[in-house]
Amino acid sequence: MHDHILKSYDAEQKRLLDETLRMGEMAAAQLEAALDVVQRRDDKAAARIVANDEAIDALEHEVSHDVMKLALRGPMARDLREILAAIRIAADIERIGDYAANVAKRSMALNTAPALPHVAGLQLIGRLAVKQVRDVMAAYRDCDVEAAQRVRASDAEIDAAYTGLFRELLTYMMEDARAITPCTHLLFMAKNIERIGDHATNIAENVWFLVRGDDALPPREKADESNTATL
Amino acid sequence: MHDHILKSYDAEQKRLLDETLRMGEMAAAQLEAALDVVQRRDDKAAARIVANDEAIDALEHEVSHDVMKLALRGPMARDLREILAAIRIAADIERIGDYAANVAKRSMALNTAPALPHVAGLQLIGRLAVKQVRDVMAAYRDCDVEAAQRVRASDAEIDAAYTGLFRELLTYMMEDARAITPCTHLLFMAKNIERIGDHATNIAENVWFLVRGDDALPPREKADESNTATL
Repeated sequence: MHDHILKSYDAEQKRLLDETLRMGEMAAAQLEAALDVVQRRDDKAAARIVANDEAIDALEHEVSHDVMKLALRGPMARDLREILAAIRIAADIERIGDYAANVAKRSMALNTAPALPHVAGLQLIGRLAVKQVRDVMAAYRDCDVEAAQRVRASDAEIDAAYTGLFRELLTYMMEDARAITPCTHLLFMAKNIERIGDHATNIAENVWFLVRGDDALPPREKADESNTATL
Repeated sequence: MHDHILKSYDAEQKRLLDETLRMGEMAAAQLEAALDVVQRRDDKAAARIVANDEAIDALEHEVSHDVMKLALRGPMARDLREILAAIRIAADIERIGDYAANVAKRSMALNTAPALPHVAGLQLIGRLAVKQVRDVMAAYRDCDVEAAQRVRASDAEIDAAYTGLFRELLTYMMEDARAITPCTHLLFMAKNIERIGDHATNIAENVWFLVRGDDALPPREKADESNTATL
């Protein structure tokens, strides 16, 4: 390719990366804000978070559009992996944004009943998930496979915390029938956060694919046993 | 391009479509089988469904691989949309497969307690979701935008059935504390099925994108109100 064509390709690829990184930070900030409104029981702020999700969706459309434009130039090898990774990572971030918005939305249902003492566990796994999202986006920005692998390995921590919270919430529901509806919302909020951890893991695997191509991913442990939990 | 190059491109594109359609049918069959094992309380068959999910994941890797190969040929316009649609649809089917496997996995937890009478509602929305997956894959195969739009519109039916089931399960949990753990699994199983409906909708939107490009999607109604349900 001519020099000026290469330059404009690089500029568009840089733009694509910047958009994806911006999306990631928006999703992390949305989750952080959602955890905050759960704590503060602030319906107005919760409604704002739900509305903000559109901005992430709009950015995903821009990413898809830019991927289309770059794909038309017939990129090869690493350049091609860059755009495939961007489209997949943008899809994961879009889902993370949806889950964060759903946490905010469900907080409004929680606020129709008296405050629960069980919200602390949610904050804990929520903060772990925010960190996972920020760490994996930094690994993506830096093409840092080792950092991405660390995010992938830490997902077991979120899974274990989720399983613990799941069991804890079941016991509250058994002790007091009035806790059933709010605890069910908390169960789904916790599940949303656990899923955010899974999407951070997907992003980590795309960083691996971007840098290492078709090399096989190293194995990792899973610790979510709530699927088979019985009390 | 030369004639023989065009021919081999068409053959590879056909192969990509066939793989994606095969993935879709595998996911629909997995969900059907999962509903069946819930009904029959068959742990062995449930374990087989969980194990089968790997075959869908492997097929998604093949689709990604074939998309990479096709993208190297620098496809334009409709051809480019074909491969972008294939990669996104394959990702949605992979998730549908995960949700179907999770329904089977949770059925094993249900089987540790006496049979519940509340499984009928799950079968109903499960069958709706199986139909949505098969219908949307047929719409994709035929590039039938109208059929895809019908699938998109019917998602409201699954959402409404899910909201009803969600409320029904909450009442059983309130009536009998022993029902809390199994009903929680049923809540998550119902949620998985409702999410399968959402992924069928995503596929329908990709059929639209494939055929109509960047034309704006027509609006549609949503009917899942369980996020804000209070009892």
